[in-house]
Amino acid sequence: MQDIRVGMGVVGYGYWGPNLVRNFVSNPSARLVAIADLDPGKLAASTRLYPGVATTDRYEDLLKDPSIDAIAIATPVRTHYELALAALKAGKHVLVEKPLAPSADLVRRLIDEADRRKLTLMVDHTFLYTPAVQKIRELVLKEELGEIYYYDSTRSSLGLFQSDVNVIWDLAVHDVSIIQYILNEDPVAVSATGSCHVAGTPENMAHITLFFDSKCVAHVSVNWLSPIKVRQTFVGGSKKMIVYDDLEPTEKIKVYDKGITLDEPSEDAHQFRIGYRAGDMWAPHISAKEALQTEVEHFIDCVRTGSPPISGGMSGLRVIEILEAASRSIADQGRPVLLPGRRTSVTPVRATA
Amino acid sequence: MQDIRVGMGVVGYGYWGPNLVRNFVSNPSARLVAIADLDPGKLAASTRLYPGVATTDRYEDLLKDPSIDAIAIATPVRTHYELALAALKAGKHVLVEKPLAPSADLVRRLIDEADRRKLTLMVDHTFLYTPAVQKIRELVLKEELGEIYYYDSTRSSLGLFQSDVNVIWDLAVHDVSIIQYILNEDPVAVSATGSCHVAGTPENMAHITLFFDSKCVAHVSVNWLSPIKVRQTFVGGSKKMIVYDDLEPTEKIKVYDKGITLDEPSEDAHQFRIGYRAGDMWAPHISAKEALQTEVEHFIDCVRTGSPPISGGMSGLRVIEILEAASRSIADQGRPVLLPGRRTSVTPVRATA
Amino acid sequence: MQDIRVGMGVVGYGYWGPNLVRNFVSNPSARLVAIADLDPGKLAASTRLYPGVATTDRYEDLLKDPSIDAIAIATPVRTHYELALAALKAGKHVLVEKPLAPSADLVRRLIDEADRRKLTLMVDHTFLYTPAVQKIRELVLKEELGEIYYYDSTRSSLGLFQSDVNVIWDLAVHDVSIIQYILNEDPVAVSATGSCHVAGTPENMAHITLFFDSKCVAHVSVNWLSPIKVRQTFVGGSKKMIVYDDLEPTEKIKVYDKGITLDEPSEDAHQFRIGYRAGDMWAPHISAKEALQTEVEHFIDCVRTGSPPISGGMSGLRVIEILEAASRSIADQGRPVLLPGRRTSVTPVRATA
Amino acid sequence: MQDIRVGMGVVGYGYWGPNLVRNFVSNPSARLVAIADLDPGKLAASTRLYPGVATTDRYEDLLKDPSIDAIAIATPVRTHYELALAALKAGKHVLVEKPLAPSADLVRRLIDEADRRKLTLMVDHTFLYTPAVQKIRELVLKEELGEIYYYDSTRSSLGLFQSDVNVIWDLAVHDVSIIQYILNEDPVAVSATGSCHVAGTPENMAHITLFFDSKCVAHVSVNWLSPIKVRQTFVGGSKKMIVYDDLEPTEKIKVYDKGITLDEPSEDAHQFRIGYRAGDMWAPHISAKEALQTEVEHFIDCVRTGSPPISGGMSGLRVIEILEAASRSIADQGRPVLLPGRRTSVTPVRATA
Repeated sequence: MQDIRVGMGVVGYGYWGPNLVRNFVSNPSARLVAIADLDPGKLAASTRLYPGVATTDRYEDLLKDPSIDAIAIATPVRTHYELALAALKAGKHVLVEKPLAPSADLVRRLIDEADRRKLTLMVDHTFLYTPAVQKIRELVLKEELGEIYYYDSTRSSLGLFQSDVNVIWDLAVHDVSIIQYILNEDPVAVSATGSCHVAGTPENMAHITLFFDSKCVAHVSVNWLSPIKVRQTFVGGSKKMIVYDDLEPTEKIKVYDKGITLDEPSEDAHQFRIGYRAGDMWAPHISAKEALQTEVEHFIDCVRTGSPPISGGMSGLRVIEILEAASRSIADQGRPVLLPGRRTSVTPVRATA
Repeated sequence: MQDIRVGMGVVGYGYWGPNLVRNFVSNPSARLVAIADLDPGKLAASTRLYPGVATTDRYEDLLKDPSIDAIAIATPVRTHYELALAALKAGKHVLVEKPLAPSADLVRRLIDEADRRKLTLMVDHTFLYTPAVQKIRELVLKEELGEIYYYDSTRSSLGLFQSDVNVIWDLAVHDVSIIQYILNEDPVAVSATGSCHVAGTPENMAHITLFFDSKCVAHVSVNWLSPIKVRQTFVGGSKKMIVYDDLEPTEKIKVYDKGITLDEPSEDAHQFRIGYRAGDMWAPHISAKEALQTEVEHFIDCVRTGSPPISGGMSGLRVIEILEAASRSIADQGRPVLLPGRRTSVTPVRATA
Repeated sequence: MQDIRVGMGVVGYGYWGPNLVRNFVSNPSARLVAIADLDPGKLAASTRLYPGVATTDRYEDLLKDPSIDAIAIATPVRTHYELALAALKAGKHVLVEKPLAPSADLVRRLIDEADRRKLTLMVDHTFLYTPAVQKIRELVLKEELGEIYYYDSTRSSLGLFQSDVNVIWDLAVHDVSIIQYILNEDPVAVSATGSCHVAGTPENMAHITLFFDSKCVAHVSVNWLSPIKVRQTFVGGSKKMIVYDDLEPTEKIKVYDKGITLDEPSEDAHQFRIGYRAGDMWAPHISAKEALQTEVEHFIDCVRTGSPPISGGMSGLRVIEILEAASRSIADQGRPVLLPGRRTSVTPVRATA
Repeated sequence: MQDIRVGMGVVGYGYWGPNLVRNFVSNPSARLVAIADLDPGKLAASTRLYPGVATTDRYEDLLKDPSIDAIAIATPVRTHYELALAALKAGKHVLVEKPLAPSADLVRRLIDEADRRKLTLMVDHTFLYTPAVQKIRELVLKEELGEIYYYDSTRSSLGLFQSDVNVIWDLAVHDVSIIQYILNEDPVAVSATGSCHVAGTPENMAHITLFFDSKCVAHVSVNWLSPIKVRQTFVGGSKKMIVYDDLEPTEKIKVYDKGITLDEPSEDAHQFRIGYRAGDMWAPHISAKEALQTEVEHFIDCVRTGSPPISGGMSGLRVIEILEAASRSIADQGRPVLLPGRRTSVTPVRATA
């Protein structure tokens, strides 16, 4: 009898790989075939937990294995492009840890390769699959907040300094992907500042402002040198405002029925009549489902049906374009950098199987 | 018998004036002679609480009263220059609510006038007199934090939209004055972005980055349209880090013995060895003394002794220069603006009496 | 022209008296005539703030003054009975700081005296007039919580050790008055334990359980030796539950749509099917009005109209009966003590004027 | 070659069993031989994760297996005695989930059996092995807190109603074991009250006071019907006080240098001079090591060396005696119940191997 489950390979069993492995193992529609890593110690660790899953220190073994339909890549950023391209060329669907690749050019090549071969290319923007972000998106789409005025996020901790990416590629990437997902509008320019406090390392602290054609503005503050962990996002609208604290165990999202009211214009040019509304606060129940479980289900579903992923190649490209523009602005102490294209209507990247 | 107390007049009995009045009334070295305001209702309110203090709707009455030695100004920003200049010309010492004046040029004229007349000119940067900020300054001066890496502050609430100033003149002014006070270094450039969400009003949301010649960077986030009040400042150093939350009733300052350690340089260019220290946290006891009480004592003392105030004219000027530069940067979507002068050694602005 | 405002006298200008004075001064229907205190320093302090209000160190002066209609008593507990009785005998309405008197017997005598003379006797159970407690009562009355299961409160801080009362007369009195106010049922018995950690002082820590005929139970934990201030109350119902944190600046009350569900009885005696509901949380907007302002308005209104106060003599009596029973239980290490009467229908204590 | 690792069997793979299994699997000195459970689905789940570990639905298989040296029991409370006794009789060392058995009598029989056979009998009082509780014990032993005045704990959540034990056997058991561990003194009496809000189920809410011969008092509040999870313990001493919040991710323990000071006795009997100290707060760094890992290491070590466990049979017995006394007091609405024995010097329950 044929195994109709999607055969998976995972490359990289370091920080994030074990989470992917755990979720593919427990997904009933997937079958984890093999794990590749250069470190024998890590492979031994995976074998102890999952004796039935093959291990290898040669990535090619995954590419050649016909029982592997798709590969999840959880390696350092500088290797993403090469590994993903090889997987696509071997006919495998690909899920890549964020960011998709170190430059927009390389991302475009991956998108082209995936399109040509009609393969799923998905980037692991995990936050898009959290129940909290999905709830925020639902509230925005239902226009509960009114016109969106701002998205303002702080994401900091005493974090891992990474050797090949700076803090915006590590942390701001989450917010940029969330902004793409919950807002109906693309940013048109970016101003960013960043600091490097340890000689010879990438920037460890940055502040990014994204400008939109509308009144909306987005700001993201990231820091690897914070004494405490902060994961807090404010979303302000003309009708209501959200405070989203990802560290809260249950009440992650608080919706405030607060705002301002505008009265009739006054004759006195120095006066404008702004009133304040201070209403109730409401914390909707948020499911405790693990985001990565939802994401793995979605990836398996896209592989099977050919439907375009929520966090597909084009979405990953837009995120990279914004990060690249922010990096250029950082180099120029905040000088604004225009963003290239604008959001076009999203169409499926290939026909369904 | 001569009354040796400093005779005070207060102009403006709106939002902040009553706090000044209350503190001058209870200061044993001051005697509050009169309150001026254009609104009879406000004067009636002051009379109900302080029947012994004269009231007037003519500011000139304060200027002409020989028993008034000094005037505290708590009126809208656009009137500060004119009222302060008139007070100085009438030979009165002056305490002005922040910001000192709407432009650096006007501040310079006030400083000149005060210098020429050997009068005290002080600006009401209240936060400099809070026990919490004084404790932070003490820790910085004692080099408890090591090299200062950053100051990062968020100051937001569903705030009063003001007609004559935007949010940075209302809220960021606090942080800029604190930065001036606790750091040993002047910023050299500023990049700022800001947004206006209500047509016809000033910017209600802004993010400011101050650059220094050293590794240090300062960032200030201010917002009049936040659903909740936030007053949180992080100060990061090479040895320790502070989280200062002004809304905490008692543990306003937490000092974290956390940070990173650098190992010997590695041969592998891709690797640098950064370790993490996670030590104890310590919250020093902070006095509950009201900042305005300390500030009023300091003003009275400066008036009497001629010593230069902590928040004197030059300090107020530097703050205004930074706010002006930030405003220009906001108009250019974050383009960096160089700051004019550099900190020079502070010398007494006049001989002591 | 006759002054139709209620003429007030206040005795005791120590910790709480100034708050009463401030609220009577600002109430437009009251006129504060005089303040009595034995301490000349305190009287001088009151004169500095309110030069128009007479002061005296003889309580009799208040009793004899025909322009004084009512007296507010803010003196140590051991003096309450004597001062209140004298005021009533002098024909004055009376507002007494909590607890009304040191024993139920003495309270009954005050009630009798007030009834006989058709005077208002009100006790200053301030918490009943807080917007938060009034909102809880409203939710309970509207049966939003379903059947009430419990009231569980913690009230602690590094508090003032009092010489003439123990911690339950100082702190638990608040909760007992709130329980009386928000529940429809009287407790029938009490078990309490208490500890004295400083030789020669009253109990500084206590835990009280109030039993009801229904499923409802109330527990109050009070402590003068807590390193941090806690003011937290849980009210659990069959449908919803409330967490009331009086130290929260704005979201004092959180209503949780959480609870359990009972399934059909199972055949297996060892099994019962209890499910859990985890719904939204809702924090109703709570007015920021000062409780004492509402209370003073209510007292003035009762004096004028003769309507029975929310916190009248009978309500104060019931609170004292519970405190006395709790004290007896504490002396017996938790042995339950039955409570005397049961709640009878509340009727106006006198005809309206 | 002989395997010198301790051979383990685990019975019960429900809520807690998987945690035991995971820790025995990863302990290098243990070898998990087999898991027993009556539910085939649970055994299948364990096989998926640990294909190398045998499974069985017959407990006897564990008893008969000579490669099994010790058995961990994670089954419902009502089965603890029978399963533990069988294991001891089969010559196996035993680790039993708390509470050790449903009555003190049964616990004594297990202790006798283990003593006679010189086998390790340990109860899984997990909290004793948390870094936070160990830090509190260290501070108490070093007399950092001075004389201990109180232990006051709240442990509540919307919890699992259990069919065979009430809330004190489920939750208060943790605090009673902690109190035993950190205090140098045994309680002499207990008063407790409890409530049952769901017909036909055990008490779901209880408050327990433990009396000591010294000034010390302990209070434990537990609740299965709380809308939010609370795990907060106050430990007050004459010199310092601790707030221990187990839900805090990092700063679990805060040590307050706060308290009272006693002045010379005053002549006035109504006056005693109590002053307040308000010093710094200090949060010692707490290791993030999992408690169960430490506990499993300790059990393995006791099995190998014969040393008496921290949470051995006698310690478990004392906890049960207190829970039984509390249950009797609950039945009598708080009437105090004397506790049988007193702490005797702890001696090893058997000679070391």
